[in-house]
Amino acid sequence: MKTGQCTGHPLDAVIDIRPDGGRGADGWTVPEYGNMVGPFGGATAAFILQVIDAQADRVGEPVALTVTYAAPIADGEFHVHVDLVRTNRTNQHWTATLSQDGEVKSTATAVFGIRREVWSDIEAVMPTAGEPASYPPATWPLGVAFLRNYDVRVIDGAPPEDEPPAPSSLSTFWVRHDPERHLDFPALAALADVFYPRVFLGLGRSVPAGTVSMTTYFHASAAELERVGDDYLLATARAQRFAGGYFDQAAQLWSRDGVLLATTNQIVYYKDSR
Amino acid sequence: MKTGQCTGHPLDAVIDIRPDGGRGADGWTVPEYGNMVGPFGGATAAFILQVIDAQADRVGEPVALTVTYAAPIADGEFHVHVDLVRTNRTNQHWTATLSQDGEVKSTATAVFGIRREVWSDIEAVMPTAGEPASYPPATWPLGVAFLRNYDVRVIDGAPPEDEPPAPSSLSTFWVRHDPERHLDFPALAALADVFYPRVFLGLGRSVPAGTVSMTTYFHASAAELERVGDDYLLATARAQRFAGGYFDQAAQLWSRDGVLLATTNQIVYYKDSR
Repeated sequence: MKTGQCTGHPLDAVIDIRPDGGRGADGWTVPEYGNMVGPFGGATAAFILQVIDAQADRVGEPVALTVTYAAPIADGEFHVHVDLVRTNRTNQHWTATLSQDGEVKSTATAVFGIRREVWSDIEAVMPTAGEPASYPPATWPLGVAFLRNYDVRVIDGAPPEDEPPAPSSLSTFWVRHDPERHLDFPALAALADVFYPRVFLGLGRSVPAGTVSMTTYFHASAAELERVGDDYLLATARAQRFAGGYFDQAAQLWSRDGVLLATTNQIVYYKDSR
Repeated sequence: MKTGQCTGHPLDAVIDIRPDGGRGADGWTVPEYGNMVGPFGGATAAFILQVIDAQADRVGEPVALTVTYAAPIADGEFHVHVDLVRTNRTNQHWTATLSQDGEVKSTATAVFGIRREVWSDIEAVMPTAGEPASYPPATWPLGVAFLRNYDVRVIDGAPPEDEPPAPSSLSTFWVRHDPERHLDFPALAALADVFYPRVFLGLGRSVPAGTVSMTTYFHASAAELERVGDDYLLATARAQRFAGGYFDQAAQLWSRDGVLLATTNQIVYYKDSR
C-alpha cells in the first residue's frame, strides 16, 4: 500500500519508489503531478532517475538521462525495471523500462559518472533578468495540475491565449518549487521538462502536443545543487525547427549565481488543428 | 563472410547490415571509419539506424536517435539487436543493443514517425558563410581515419595544435562526403558526430575525450535529404559547459539553401592531462 503520497512535498510522493528487491521498483501516479494526458513527463524522468540512484551498485552522479514517452501512463500503479549495462572506471551505463499491465509506456537510458577536478568553463551566457520578486507569478491558461507545484515568474514568452504568433519561441522564467523544496537530481530532471510546448508561441494558441523523447545533461555536481538549496532557477527554452509534426525544444537551467546546472533537449509532436 | 567492404562508398560498407532473419543484424568495423579508439561513433549510429530502418514492420522516417557509447567496439564483427517497443498512429519507438562476444558496447533508443503537412517554421538562424570553394580543405592534426571520408572547409574553429585556448568552442564548417555520396538518414546520423571534441578549443590542444551519449533529432523529411543530393552541408557546434570531466556539444546541420536538417547534442568525457 502506498502511504507516502499524503505527507511531505508532492515531488517526494512522485519519487517515492518501492523497490522490489531486484532491479525494479513500483510507483504510483500522483494527482498533483498530472498533465494534459497522464503524469507530467518530468515526474516520470525523476522517478526513473531515483530508481537507478537507489541501486546498491550504482556509481557516481547523474550525467545524462534520455527518456522516451512511447504511450500515456494511466493513473495508478506502474513498474520500472532497470538494467546495469556496463560499469567503467568513471562512468556507468543504465537502461530502464516503465510498464503498466505488461505494456511498455517509457524507455530510458542513463549515464552516471564520477566528477573529477579538471579544467572547467561555462561558455553559455546566462540570460539577463531582474529579481524574481519583480515579476508577477505566471498564470497558466492550461488546466494542468503539475504547474501548480511551481512558482514561475515569466520574464519572456508567457503562454499565449489566442494571440498573434509570437516572433520567437523563446521563454525565460524564474522557477522554484511551491511549496519550497531543496534542489536535487530528481528535482532537476523534472524541472528540465517544465517548459510548455514551444509550438504554442509559434501558433499563438495551445494545440495538442506531447514530448516524444527528452534528453537531459546534468552539468552540476551534487555540491552545486546543494548550494542552490530552495532558491529560484533561471530557465530558458526555445525551438530550432517546427516541421512535419515534430519540433525540438532546447533549454538551459541556471542557478541564480550563474552556474549552468543542466542543459536539456526534447522532441515534441504537435498538431495544428484548431 | 563480408564482401561489401571493398566496393562502393566507404559509408555503404559501414551500413552494410547482414540481417539475421529476426530482430538482429551483424556488422563489421570498416577500417576507413576508424577513430582514435574503435570505430567513429557516427558510424555506429548510422548502422543502428539502418538496422531499424530494415525491419519489415518499421513505420515512418527517423525522428530521434539516442546512442550511448558504453565501451569501445573492437575491430571486427559485432551484432545489433533491435526491439519494437510500441507502434502508435504516427510514430514508433525502438530500442537497440550493440554487442560483441556477449558484451554490450552500445545501447540506443529511436523514434520513427510519419511526417504530416502542418504549420512549419525554421527558427534557428543559419550561420553566414562564403562559398565552400573559398575555404581551403581542413587539415587534421589527429591521425583519425574517418575524417578522410569527409571534405571539410573550416569557416570558424579549426582544430588547434598546441595553441592558446580559443575564446569560444564554436566551430562552423562546410562538409560533404569525399568521395561524394548522396545524403540519406544514415549519412545524416553519422554527420551529426563529425565535430571534433569542443574541449580541444577550450584547452588549445587535443586531450583524451570520447562521446558518452549522443542524441540526434532529424528535422528533415526524406524528400528534403533527396534535394540536398551530394552537396555540402553547413555544420556548426559549440559547448555550453565543461565541468567535472564532461561537456556537452550542441550542433546544427544545415542544407546550403537554409533548411535545418538536424540538430544534435552529445555529452563527452574528457581529461585535461598533458
